[in-house]
Amino acid sequence: MNSLNFSGGPGILPESVLRETQQSIEAVPEVGLSILGISHRSQWFADVVAEAEANIRALLDVPDDYCILFLQGGATLQFSMIPMLLLRHTGKTAEYLRTGYWSSKAIPEAVLEGDVKVVWDGESCGFRRLPTAEELEFSPSAAYLHYVSNETVEGTQFHQVLGLDDVPRVCDMSSDFLSRPVDVRRFSIIYAHAQKNLGPAGVTVVIVKRDLLDSTPKGIPALLDYREHLKAHSIYNTPPVFAIYVAMLITRWILKDVGGLEKMNEINQQKARLLYKTVDESNGLITTRAALENRSLMNVVFGFQNTEIEKLFLQKSALVGFSGLNGHRSIGGIRASIYNAMTIPAVEKLSAFLRDFVAAHCIA
Amino acid sequence: MNSLNFSGGPGILPESVLRETQQSIEAVPEVGLSILGISHRSQWFADVVAEAEANIRALLDVPDDYCILFLQGGATLQFSMIPMLLLRHTGKTAEYLRTGYWSSKAIPEAVLEGDVKVVWDGESCGFRRLPTAEELEFSPSAAYLHYVSNETVEGTQFHQVLGLDDVPRVCDMSSDFLSRPVDVRRFSIIYAHAQKNLGPAGVTVVIVKRDLLDSTPKGIPALLDYREHLKAHSIYNTPPVFAIYVAMLITRWILKDVGGLEKMNEINQQKARLLYKTVDESNGLITTRAALENRSLMNVVFGFQNTEIEKLFLQKSALVGFSGLNGHRSIGGIRASIYNAMTIPAVEKLSAFLRDFVAAHCIA
Repeated sequence: MNSLNFSGGPGILPESVLRETQQSIEAVPEVGLSILGISHRSQWFADVVAEAEANIRALLDVPDDYCILFLQGGATLQFSMIPMLLLRHTGKTAEYLRTGYWSSKAIPEAVLEGDVKVVWDGESCGFRRLPTAEELEFSPSAAYLHYVSNETVEGTQFHQVLGLDDVPRVCDMSSDFLSRPVDVRRFSIIYAHAQKNLGPAGVTVVIVKRDLLDSTPKGIPALLDYREHLKAHSIYNTPPVFAIYVAMLITRWILKDVGGLEKMNEINQQKARLLYKTVDESNGLITTRAALENRSLMNVVFGFQNTEIEKLFLQKSALVGFSGLNGHRSIGGIRASIYNAMTIPAVEKLSAFLRDFVAAHCIA
Repeated sequence: MNSLNFSGGPGILPESVLRETQQSIEAVPEVGLSILGISHRSQWFADVVAEAEANIRALLDVPDDYCILFLQGGATLQFSMIPMLLLRHTGKTAEYLRTGYWSSKAIPEAVLEGDVKVVWDGESCGFRRLPTAEELEFSPSAAYLHYVSNETVEGTQFHQVLGLDDVPRVCDMSSDFLSRPVDVRRFSIIYAHAQKNLGPAGVTVVIVKRDLLDSTPKGIPALLDYREHLKAHSIYNTPPVFAIYVAMLITRWILKDVGGLEKMNEINQQKARLLYKTVDESNGLITTRAALENRSLMNVVFGFQNTEIEKLFLQKSALVGFSGLNGHRSIGGIRASIYNAMTIPAVEKLSAFLRDFVAAHCIA
């Protein structure tokens, strides 16, 4: 029996996409070659890239003055490429929100390129809550504002857009991209690695307002220059053909099978409600890490008051086929990641298992 | 019927590896999860990386004072990472051989980091031949020498090691890596993207002498700093799990099924001989692009004297299932790429088809 994959990422992908992918390893029917051996310069692959872009454009209603790029290097490379573009040689200050593990990783890379101000630092509250708009003071002369929409490790998620509309807003949506509608017009750059909702590890999507690229400073390596990727329709050098192909299939699945992001969001809300309800009804035996108003719809992070019982839960749940429930190595606990491809019945199963486990150990 | 893939890359992969890969898309048997959803922090994946490294170490007899890294960004990112490491702030000059399309691409990226001297430029001879050792004059105080062992586009290949032993020797082996034995001790850095002999696009192998990393200049983004990847055993950020897994399977195939690089080289020699013989016996109807002594064992690049007949050959060969024979878009002509996974019977088929075609058009 294969396990149910609640891993924080690389995470679960839709069954129908896996079946089509499996076929493509032998041969993509319309080409007659394995997907692993198809030239990135073929018309077929140009069409794959074009469809992936068109699907994302349709799903998020991306305006024409934004380009959509498929790059390598993960979100981590974006931590550098963004300040190279928007901060280097500007003499300005970039503003960052430090809300958890991943937003913390972005900051030192920006510091290499210029002045950085951490506008909010959640370390003192253990990254258990996110700032409210009222707590934050932004500078209208900042180079840009950077934040992470969903902190995968801590299980927190912003449910509103932050910052000043006159300052470029840059958002790392790696772990909630295409999980809900987003008003792209309010952002200058949105980026997301694939290995949560969008596909296998190895490709990163960047949505960037085209006119920002006009002021690209000189001296940036070609591969780190968004303009080169734009000119080449994301085929500047050999791209990760397979990862882009699977990502395209997933955008097609969200658009055609699920029916768009409103619908995707409803399903994701429903899954999260199921799990949080179970936690909230545990009489305090288990609690979420995140503050109520900042709970993530993607990563339900919680812990048992009793660490021995927690260990037992992880052991027992693994034995019956729930995989990837261990919390991130940096904080421990339990994390149930319920990305787009996780089905409601699967979450119901986990929820029932958790409820039964809690009931058994409340009495004990 | 699926086609025979003579593409310049991404290229053909071994049938047995494709079958195992296909199974892994549904589930890796020992894990019970799709390869696309397995955590890069799992013990299973750590073992995959360790085996890939061990296999390469065994195949090339890589000494312990070299590390083997699996990175993203293709050879193109190495065009930048290498001068960042070895040229930036040194005040020295890096020496480059310009022998074709790919070595030409490396040079402007190095220029961004310091002084570059092109020691040999093959443009005047249309990149049809490579320099001999006697023609070249190297400086003993150069930062390093960079060259490309096999020019994929032009079909030329060095059959000896160049440069001074006291100057770091850096070689882009993207298109002949693991196709033949190499004396790694004579190189400081060897790098190769995967999509020729090693696997699907999306991962790049770098073999680097460890002590070179001690002088890494400050201010390099973490993702472009080899030391970060070394410390993290190539799992600094989420790596391209799937591409590394397939690359591991291929190193296992060369080691266990083929029987090592001596054997691999014999097979590759035999395939190349078959095709070049057919060209040489065409009474001048077809000729190779490369000079006799520089012919590549990986990319047999040739052309018909008559461009109309050439067009006809490309049409007819495609119709009967030979795929990817069009020459690179920059030079045209015909290119039969016969990477490791291309079998002798498949090359015999192409050779026979070519011979028959030539015979028919000699008479006509």
